[in-house]
Amino acid sequence: MTDFYDLAAIGNAIVDVIAPADDAFLAAEGLTKGSMMLIDEAQATALYGRMAPGMETSGGSAGNTVAGVASFGGRAAYLGKVAGDQLGEVFAHDMHAIGAAYATPPLAEGPATARCLINVTPDGQRTMCTFLGASTELSPADVEAPVIEGAKIVYLEGYLFDPPEARRAFEKAAALARGAGRMIAITLSDSFVVERHRAELLAFIERDVDIVFANEAEITALFETDFHAAIEAIRTRTRIAAVTRSEQGSVVVAGPETHTVAAFPVEKVVDTTGAGDQYAAGFLFGLAQGRPLDVCGRLGSLAAAEVISHYGPRPLVSLKDLAAAQGL
Amino acid sequence: MTDFYDLAAIGNAIVDVIAPADDAFLAAEGLTKGSMMLIDEAQATALYGRMAPGMETSGGSAGNTVAGVASFGGRAAYLGKVAGDQLGEVFAHDMHAIGAAYATPPLAEGPATARCLINVTPDGQRTMCTFLGASTELSPADVEAPVIEGAKIVYLEGYLFDPPEARRAFEKAAALARGAGRMIAITLSDSFVVERHRAELLAFIERDVDIVFANEAEITALFETDFHAAIEAIRTRTRIAAVTRSEQGSVVVAGPETHTVAAFPVEKVVDTTGAGDQYAAGFLFGLAQGRPLDVCGRLGSLAAAEVISHYGPRPLVSLKDLAAAQGL
Repeated sequence: MTDFYDLAAIGNAIVDVIAPADDAFLAAEGLTKGSMMLIDEAQATALYGRMAPGMETSGGSAGNTVAGVASFGGRAAYLGKVAGDQLGEVFAHDMHAIGAAYATPPLAEGPATARCLINVTPDGQRTMCTFLGASTELSPADVEAPVIEGAKIVYLEGYLFDPPEARRAFEKAAALARGAGRMIAITLSDSFVVERHRAELLAFIERDVDIVFANEAEITALFETDFHAAIEAIRTRTRIAAVTRSEQGSVVVAGPETHTVAAFPVEKVVDTTGAGDQYAAGFLFGLAQGRPLDVCGRLGSLAAAEVISHYGPRPLVSLKDLAAAQGL
Repeated sequence: MTDFYDLAAIGNAIVDVIAPADDAFLAAEGLTKGSMMLIDEAQATALYGRMAPGMETSGGSAGNTVAGVASFGGRAAYLGKVAGDQLGEVFAHDMHAIGAAYATPPLAEGPATARCLINVTPDGQRTMCTFLGASTELSPADVEAPVIEGAKIVYLEGYLFDPPEARRAFEKAAALARGAGRMIAITLSDSFVVERHRAELLAFIERDVDIVFANEAEITALFETDFHAAIEAIRTRTRIAAVTRSEQGSVVVAGPETHTVAAFPVEKVVDTTGAGDQYAAGFLFGLAQGRPLDVCGRLGSLAAAEVISHYGPRPLVSLKDLAAAQGL
């Protein structure tokens, strides 16, 4: 099988709307800091109407990871559904401009391109409310076998477990990857996603998944236990697990191996949006290049540090140059 | 006449698309660094297709100035035309979210919301290509007398001299302001605008304008002479002129008075988009509060320094707080 891509990723195609907010705003809106909540279009319109002036930028967890891998110089492909509207055009443009392969046809009729309303507090924490719009209409027909089968690693977003049609697309992608002997990676995405789909996620991981990405809240939610017990539990369920812990860096386990990876220092945390997505980008790029796991973790830390130092979920500088400057 | 607003501004309502670029890209596209060029929709689509991944944010020269005045705590109103599309909704949201009065009805049928494609080079310089779209459809009917007559200062964008319908809206606004005894301010906007409309601009300034904003290229284009001769020429044509000179600060003249105002130091110039617009915001806010002209100039310098320290043409922090911290 020819390796056309280092990574093929499938996820909710979302445009982010990022605006500053304070803790009082989060409280008044009933939002839990750092969380992701699904909202409908009416709620999105109402919340947007109360938010501060913002900036719009392409987002979506797996889309951000694809942008990161491309920024490292990797070859990446993306599958995700936008609508045929201006924000959908922005999303597609940004995918192509970063050099990623992206050819999912936009939704002809139906809801608008998905939006994630992100309120960023002065401590850099992001609180997300997502209107999934057209992204939930990603269907198995959109999952192109040559893209999945031509990638060294197929990366799946846990968020896709929520919408039934996208879930079927997810399952098709996983089956194609398994059939082609490709490595399968998943991000747990969100602790509420884990709680909603714990048993199915765990079964899927044990059967199909080679690489699991999670943060502390997600991994402890998956096993309903404390951090250290969760780390030992995931160690036996998958080949490689990388668990991020914000400023405490990450822990990478693989069979008997354990690597503790420090976070890269950041002068000021401006906006944590995309931190986990960029960690995954660095890690997966390293893995696709056959680098040792501790180096993969450091590439992840480096990419995460870049993205939290500015507004927006994707790198603003070349991660390839940044890695070279760090001797990675 | 009640002062409902410190400032009412009329301009091209534009959404900015900001992306990094290098000098080679500008050369390949035939773009002159630091310039603003008008392009049609086909050119916009083609150029956008070649640009790097970007971010979208509300812009438009006078719109940026309104956002700056509101950020200082001033009461501001805006008149400008968007289409009834997603980018138009973003523009209107951002106006309302900053606390500005904005009620121009969106264009029901016709071109899309105006876009300014901004390529930012590593030196922080911005090179702009504007597709005017719906903004040129601003008509005299959109110029509401109570808004113009209720503002201490009416601020007009030189860019509006280009499209015939917007030009008529500009003239109606000027006539209403004059009739109500309001101060009229204009920005020359662009040296090519000045060259295209030199005689009419000069006649308009001499007859109607109290406050002229220009940069060095614009003021020398207006009088077809060198900087010092141009300063002396504008001194006799209007009541107050504020001429910006990038890192050399600004020169403010008013009859016999001359104030040389230093630029505020900036750690790193990231993106000069909006520098002149924010200078005007600080200056006009100060003027509306009855502050001395040198203080108005310093408020302008402060606002310009904030906006060039990050991507995007509008302030990301409260200019009111920033001014207080500087003892202004």
